[in-house]
Amino acid sequence: MAKHIGAETVVFSKPVSIIAAASTAGTKEGEGPLGKLFDRVLTDNMAGEETWEAAESAMVKDNLSILFEKSGVRPDFIFAGDLQNQCCGTNYGVKDIKIPTFGIFDACATFGEALALAAMTVDGGAAENVAAGVSSHFCSAERQFRFPLELGNQRPQTSTYTVTGAGAAMVSNKDVPPYITAFTIGKIVDYGVNDANNMGAAMAPAAAECISAHLRDTVRAADYYDLIVTGDLGYVGKELLLQLLKNEGIDIADNHTDCGIEIFDKASQDTHAGGSGCACSAAVFAAMLYKRLKKGELNKILLVPTGALMSPTSIQEGKSILGAAYAVAIENGVIKWNI
Amino acid sequence: MAKHIGAETVVFSKPVSIIAAASTAGTKEGEGPLGKLFDRVLTDNMAGEETWEAAESAMVKDNLSILFEKSGVRPDFIFAGDLQNQCCGTNYGVKDIKIPTFGIFDACATFGEALALAAMTVDGGAAENVAAGVSSHFCSAERQFRFPLELGNQRPQTSTYTVTGAGAAMVSNKDVPPYITAFTIGKIVDYGVNDANNMGAAMAPAAAECISAHLRDTVRAADYYDLIVTGDLGYVGKELLLQLLKNEGIDIADNHTDCGIEIFDKASQDTHAGGSGCACSAAVFAAMLYKRLKKGELNKILLVPTGALMSPTSIQEGKSILGAAYAVAIENGVIKWNI
Repeated sequence: MAKHIGAETVVFSKPVSIIAAASTAGTKEGEGPLGKLFDRVLTDNMAGEETWEAAESAMVKDNLSILFEKSGVRPDFIFAGDLQNQCCGTNYGVKDIKIPTFGIFDACATFGEALALAAMTVDGGAAENVAAGVSSHFCSAERQFRFPLELGNQRPQTSTYTVTGAGAAMVSNKDVPPYITAFTIGKIVDYGVNDANNMGAAMAPAAAECISAHLRDTVRAADYYDLIVTGDLGYVGKELLLQLLKNEGIDIADNHTDCGIEIFDKASQDTHAGGSGCACSAAVFAAMLYKRLKKGELNKILLVPTGALMSPTSIQEGKSILGAAYAVAIENGVIKWNI
Repeated sequence: MAKHIGAETVVFSKPVSIIAAASTAGTKEGEGPLGKLFDRVLTDNMAGEETWEAAESAMVKDNLSILFEKSGVRPDFIFAGDLQNQCCGTNYGVKDIKIPTFGIFDACATFGEALALAAMTVDGGAAENVAAGVSSHFCSAERQFRFPLELGNQRPQTSTYTVTGAGAAMVSNKDVPPYITAFTIGKIVDYGVNDANNMGAAMAPAAAECISAHLRDTVRAADYYDLIVTGDLGYVGKELLLQLLKNEGIDIADNHTDCGIEIFDKASQDTHAGGSGCACSAAVFAAMLYKRLKKGELNKILLVPTGALMSPTSIQEGKSILGAAYAVAIENGVIKWNI
């Protein structure tokens, strides 16, 4: 039975497990520091398809099949989303799998939303096994949000590099660690940022609000967690996040990292402020964080996928970029919440 | 406690109520047969804003405030979505409300998804009250999916007319009829339709699959329901739906209607195949169906919002339009399921 505590948080007192995680990465991600940890690394970012969009859908389908195989189950439902207009990366990716799918969208924070909804669905008894998965593709994202790649535009130093990849987790009522013990749905934060090449600045205030609300709602100190891992703030957003939380008296300098920082090597890969995209947090979770939890190297993490809500139309119409964040507590023990 | 039955259905044996519903309609919808039933009818489809997209967001915000007032509650969470790229209609509409929001997307079937997720969230104990809301705007949809309105393109007779409006419902653990007793998440159906001006044909097979699965999973006959109401198949899709179900031995000719048929007057309003858009099923539900349930004129309905999954990019790249449907059973009694 889930319980709603504080302003924005839901806690689970019975086991809601993540029994498997799967990751697929593009060529550049495969050359990065986590390259050997991904389940699949593309040898060509077209993935045998004729368009980037179709390549993304192919990754979605293939990564889910890896997840089904690793977990040994075919889920009752899928929660999935991506960055393509009308979530086409997901829809054309799942259509042949023939499992009822809930389409969700929260920009690059979608993996957090997927885990939260999958956990509620399993906890409430509506399903035994639910897959949560997301994807992104550098080329489909650039074409859609910024400039045709053929223009060869220079990317400013504050920009992040959309991860080509897919990540997914199988959430289950089987009692196997690690468990999803709580989640916090951050409020949308409008900090007035309207530079589409500086998403880190737009998202950091939302991440700060969400982490702060999570710690307040759960009555936990920041150092309760072995690691607080934001999704794709990158180097620019990370500095802002640490400062914003410090202003509230919360210091996470020693136990924070960001998936956008982990996935590329800054010195050699020319990715500027770091990685981003729905797949950034999901693939890093599946490839690295989940494995470290299974090994007991980490026992309590707070995964905080972050999203920048905007479209080219909203930017052209002068709207600021909205920040969103979902915090998901993943721990090796079940928590008997009595808040 | 929810229970997963059959292949695609979830049932609720304890009260999950819809305690209020709110609707907003554009000028043309206000002149239609349901005009007097909407809570708010715009006098100008710009809603006092400078862009169509912003007008849609203004409707979202205003319609939710009507819902909060009618229900007397401020919900713990919101599930919401729309047709704009990256769900911008929703995001800019809810940002100032400061309630944690789950962004969802299933094209014009989004209201069904919102009701299903709100019901699971309330049933599982994660929230006491959850708002489910959607929106669409004729002008923002035309600009995005089809042609600039300024071109004055002729619309073919198979095309539907995107409803300008918003609809929302407050799902609650208060024990007041009507109740959400079950929902069925249809599988994505690819019938190979690639005419973006004939969405009814793309969606009808998905509606048929979903209704058929719902009746099979719940062991109910089609005439169990006083009314089976699809979302926005329009006149073309309705005929296809009836035929497809008839092929399976299911006859709903006498207890079926479609929100896209109800919302406009075919003879006088020049809307061709009928209404469509996320707001079509939601506004018709809130304005008419919910009121008829409250009055006891209807006691058991199956609301089946339908969606066409595609984007201009997917169409240009030769992909077919995928159909999706969510069926939500709404009844004046709580059902003690023992399937």
